[in-house]
Amino acid sequence: MEKQIKKIIGVDIGGTTIKFALMDTQGKIEKKWSIPTNISEKGKFIPNEICSSIRSSINKDTLVEIKGIGIGVPGAISSDGEIVVQAVNLDWEQIPLKKMITHKLGMDACLLNDANAAALGEMWRGAAHGRENLLFVTLGTGVGGGIILNGRVLNGCHSAGGEIGHIPIRSDENRLCGCGGRNCLETFASANGLVLSMRKKLELLGGSWTEITPPIIFEKAAQNDEAAKEVLNEFVTVLAQALAGIMNTIDVEEIIIGGGLSEAGAYLLDPLKEKLEKYVFPQIRNHFSLKKALLGNDAGIYGAAYSYLLKKAV
Amino acid sequence: MEKQIKKIIGVDIGGTTIKFALMDTQGKIEKKWSIPTNISEKGKFIPNEICSSIRSSINKDTLVEIKGIGIGVPGAISSDGEIVVQAVNLDWEQIPLKKMITHKLGMDACLLNDANAAALGEMWRGAAHGRENLLFVTLGTGVGGGIILNGRVLNGCHSAGGEIGHIPIRSDENRLCGCGGRNCLETFASANGLVLSMRKKLELLGGSWTEITPPIIFEKAAQNDEAAKEVLNEFVTVLAQALAGIMNTIDVEEIIIGGGLSEAGAYLLDPLKEKLEKYVFPQIRNHFSLKKALLGNDAGIYGAAYSYLLKKAV
Repeated sequence: MEKQIKKIIGVDIGGTTIKFALMDTQGKIEKKWSIPTNISEKGKFIPNEICSSIRSSINKDTLVEIKGIGIGVPGAISSDGEIVVQAVNLDWEQIPLKKMITHKLGMDACLLNDANAAALGEMWRGAAHGRENLLFVTLGTGVGGGIILNGRVLNGCHSAGGEIGHIPIRSDENRLCGCGGRNCLETFASANGLVLSMRKKLELLGGSWTEITPPIIFEKAAQNDEAAKEVLNEFVTVLAQALAGIMNTIDVEEIIIGGGLSEAGAYLLDPLKEKLEKYVFPQIRNHFSLKKALLGNDAGIYGAAYSYLLKKAV
Repeated sequence: MEKQIKKIIGVDIGGTTIKFALMDTQGKIEKKWSIPTNISEKGKFIPNEICSSIRSSINKDTLVEIKGIGIGVPGAISSDGEIVVQAVNLDWEQIPLKKMITHKLGMDACLLNDANAAALGEMWRGAAHGRENLLFVTLGTGVGGGIILNGRVLNGCHSAGGEIGHIPIRSDENRLCGCGGRNCLETFASANGLVLSMRKKLELLGGSWTEITPPIIFEKAAQNDEAAKEVLNEFVTVLAQALAGIMNTIDVEEIIIGGGLSEAGAYLLDPLKEKLEKYVFPQIRNHFSLKKALLGNDAGIYGAAYSYLLKKAV
């Protein structure tokens, strides 16, 4: 009989740091640490450095109790969960990370996309606790998404499940997206998109601010600055229409908003909810919730660890 | 031990006719028939008439071999599959159809939304045979959708899964949708939407045609009529952007196009595929297929019957 799982490790590989957490199966964190992401030589040292850091940070008696590790990766994971198909920020292509980790650490590993990990983390220990069907949205430099249906991540047939930042938006503008496309949702509904919209608005009005950042835009709008209010209204409209389109497609019970822009709290969430109610299908109206994410930067390590528990529960 | 299932019945309740098929578990149809839909007195006679029609159309020896029946309904089905929450065309609300049918016929029943049934039918015996992840789109009077993930229908938390006809479209126009919303996808990408766009275009140009129908618009465009070409180009663009948004969200391997407009064949599908490739996320590009539906009006009876087999296979 397989020994009961007592402790698990969650890892979140980011472009600048790799975060680690040792926790029990209830998500109680015993130890949390991080190391810088070594992206030199096409990120070839990353797998070894993850293993070394785990070996040196956790004592031997505890290590033997750990059966598995979940790893969130900023990129696409193959359908079988074995390979990182591509992770642009790490300069990775076709890296058999699962095999590398299990081989070196002698424990089972589980890979998933970082946005999907964050979605799973919010479901397990965060804002969506108790839900099984949800859409997690990060509004940061870009726009990311993770979809959970019946308690499981929707990874998709080409690891593009939840890539909602790249939903095409109809617009007279011609904003270039990092993916090579034009007018993707993230060129409007991210922090960068918001700042660009504000700058364009000010140029149009012949005005100028010494600095344009999302917090300043929200602050000015709260002070009744007409230009800031108009830009935010348009920002929320674009986002609400896109999210309503997703709701009318996958019909989940909850939307969780994370990422830097979610720090605006009610200033963002209240008007967003109002517009969402307008655009969702009648059957959904007044029957879903919209919440701010709870776990911040820790969502990924929680979700990565939980993905291993889920895998074992199958 | 439960007796092996030998024969099943698929039923597709439409606004004007109810279609029936008796088939084996491979989908070979032994008998197919239909009756008019009796929508008098809030459709209260429909459940009885379905049962009577089955009893009178199938001989007794065969009836005992039938263990179950699948029924496609033009409306929303509760998550537990027991109740028709609402079906506007039948004037139904909160009808416990499953219990009514099982009670009267003495066989197990399975309910599902009609667009979901058609999606399942195309997967089982139609254009998507062999696939397990697909988006089925009907372009008819309205725009309907059905999503299959891992071989199962995505019904959603409020029976609104796949209601893609109601994705909000950004537009300077203000088209009223049957759902009460404005500028839903189906106000542009349906037969009615296409005709309206053509009429508006002709008004703008000061021209007029004696008759405007989708086949006439496709024919004129093939004859190089500039106005018809422009309207079709815009029609395909709106549809491609919406479908690409869905693909970037759920990332399935195949899109099946059914409904009256799909009769345009390559005149619709070729430009649609071209634009889709432009708007989908790079990982998906060149890795999905777009096909015309194969089963026409029979998709629903196949899918309804198959939903019963799926339920039994759980």
